[in-house]
Amino acid sequence: MANLPLFIGIDGGGSKCRAIITDNNNNVLGSGVSGAANAFQNLMLCQKSIVEAAEKALVSANINGLRISELIAGIGLAGVNVPSAFIAMSQWQHPFAQLHLTNDLHIACLGAHGGENGAIIVTGTGSCGYRRVNEHSLMLGGYGFAIGDQASGAWFGQQLVKHVLLSLDKLAPATKMSVLLLNKLNCHHALEIVERVANQSSSFYGQLAAIVFDAAADNDALALGIIKQASDYISAIGQRLCQDESLDLAMIGGLALTLKPYLSDDLVSQLVRPNMPPEMGAIHYAKQQMTS
Amino acid sequence: MANLPLFIGIDGGGSKCRAIITDNNNNVLGSGVSGAANAFQNLMLCQKSIVEAAEKALVSANINGLRISELIAGIGLAGVNVPSAFIAMSQWQHPFAQLHLTNDLHIACLGAHGGENGAIIVTGTGSCGYRRVNEHSLMLGGYGFAIGDQASGAWFGQQLVKHVLLSLDKLAPATKMSVLLLNKLNCHHALEIVERVANQSSSFYGQLAAIVFDAAADNDALALGIIKQASDYISAIGQRLCQDESLDLAMIGGLALTLKPYLSDDLVSQLVRPNMPPEMGAIHYAKQQMTS
Repeated sequence: MANLPLFIGIDGGGSKCRAIITDNNNNVLGSGVSGAANAFQNLMLCQKSIVEAAEKALVSANINGLRISELIAGIGLAGVNVPSAFIAMSQWQHPFAQLHLTNDLHIACLGAHGGENGAIIVTGTGSCGYRRVNEHSLMLGGYGFAIGDQASGAWFGQQLVKHVLLSLDKLAPATKMSVLLLNKLNCHHALEIVERVANQSSSFYGQLAAIVFDAAADNDALALGIIKQASDYISAIGQRLCQDESLDLAMIGGLALTLKPYLSDDLVSQLVRPNMPPEMGAIHYAKQQMTS
Repeated sequence: MANLPLFIGIDGGGSKCRAIITDNNNNVLGSGVSGAANAFQNLMLCQKSIVEAAEKALVSANINGLRISELIAGIGLAGVNVPSAFIAMSQWQHPFAQLHLTNDLHIACLGAHGGENGAIIVTGTGSCGYRRVNEHSLMLGGYGFAIGDQASGAWFGQQLVKHVLLSLDKLAPATKMSVLLLNKLNCHHALEIVERVANQSSSFYGQLAAIVFDAAADNDALALGIIKQASDYISAIGQRLCQDESLDLAMIGGLALTLKPYLSDDLVSQLVRPNMPPEMGAIHYAKQQMTS
């Protein structure tokens, strides 16, 4: 028999929204995944993805008669670090019994360090650095791939396209990334690439990131140069996060393992393995808020 | 008395659309300016801007009873190098007696070199290199500021925002650009900047470019670094355009004069002054098409 009350922890990011349902003893009862949930980029889609992930988790939990309205939600969302997006989300007529809202980095950090002080570097579709020491948090980057998010999947995809276009124009050296990108997009020349990538989302660019690492594995100089830039950025973030005091630092997000072989030994020696996923951090956050 | 037929030459770019009306002897009878006219970015707005610039030129010509439908139009448009945008523009039920359509670079090159072979580098809201030798043209760059357009106004604005955000996060050195940007956007911290620039157009970013040059004039290292990158890109374009044969090379666009002091002596020694504006190049193009 599940220990009441039941919780739902939700991690909303630029390309996916993950939900888990647990009982009061943190036993996982079900989980679900849906699409993008960035409150700043697209509020309506974000709320839709949250409900969809919750409904899938509910189906997976398969508990007779259990409804969303009985669940206490902890939600960490990308985009709510922008004040207007936080306010908009706070005004949502949500379907849960309670909703405890914070940003995606906060729950990722709580999850990674089991609720203890610590720092994280996220490299998924977007990128960001974050640390939390007692009630004090510091957030670095995370501004979106048009003006930031260095070392994220979307950033890698964008750098890839930029460098391939320069190379096809013979303004940069030849690169193995050109053929890989043309094939991936089913294009034959530069202007077709431009048409295909115009106005595309961060998720679209993020899906191109693997090409940079494939070419780098084949010793492509331009690809290795892009990765070097990313690695330098991650090192800078790591140093800033841990400069004042010794903190556990975890790397999370879809690109974390891919990037690790390219990071400096100094940084790698500092890294700890994340303890729990962000969704569990979200449930931890909801419980904190209820008792505080 | 004006020499018939009358022509209208139109230069449509990312932030402005310029039109001039001339008689058959190239005497200028009137001119008009309207807003953005990029056929790829926004087709409806592009057509609206063309008509508006033409109507303004007509008012300025002040010729009793003259109507748009009597004018032979030569139009050079940003964005029609993308095939789908060229096709869409070709299907336009336009208001002119005839419409001879080509891209904005072609008319700029015809104008700059009085219809002769030559090369141009455009640095306005966007950027691009172009050369035309008899019927053979070569276009370099011009892919939009999200994935290209290095050294353009929009690119400078975007680099400015990126570097200021890095600097405010203390991931890059302090820069005079930070205060200038915060003041310009009436913001107080990084996240406010992110909100202000989100989803903004190339024209918006282009309007921020001056801040980079203001800071550079004050010896700001980051600003000078951005300009160095732009200058290297322009040099690379110049070399590619003129590598096969000796061609006159002209720099045009809103940033051309601003950039000149930062270009290499080699490049500056190659530059010639543009002969006529792009709108006159557009009329030259229309006449070429009528006699070919």
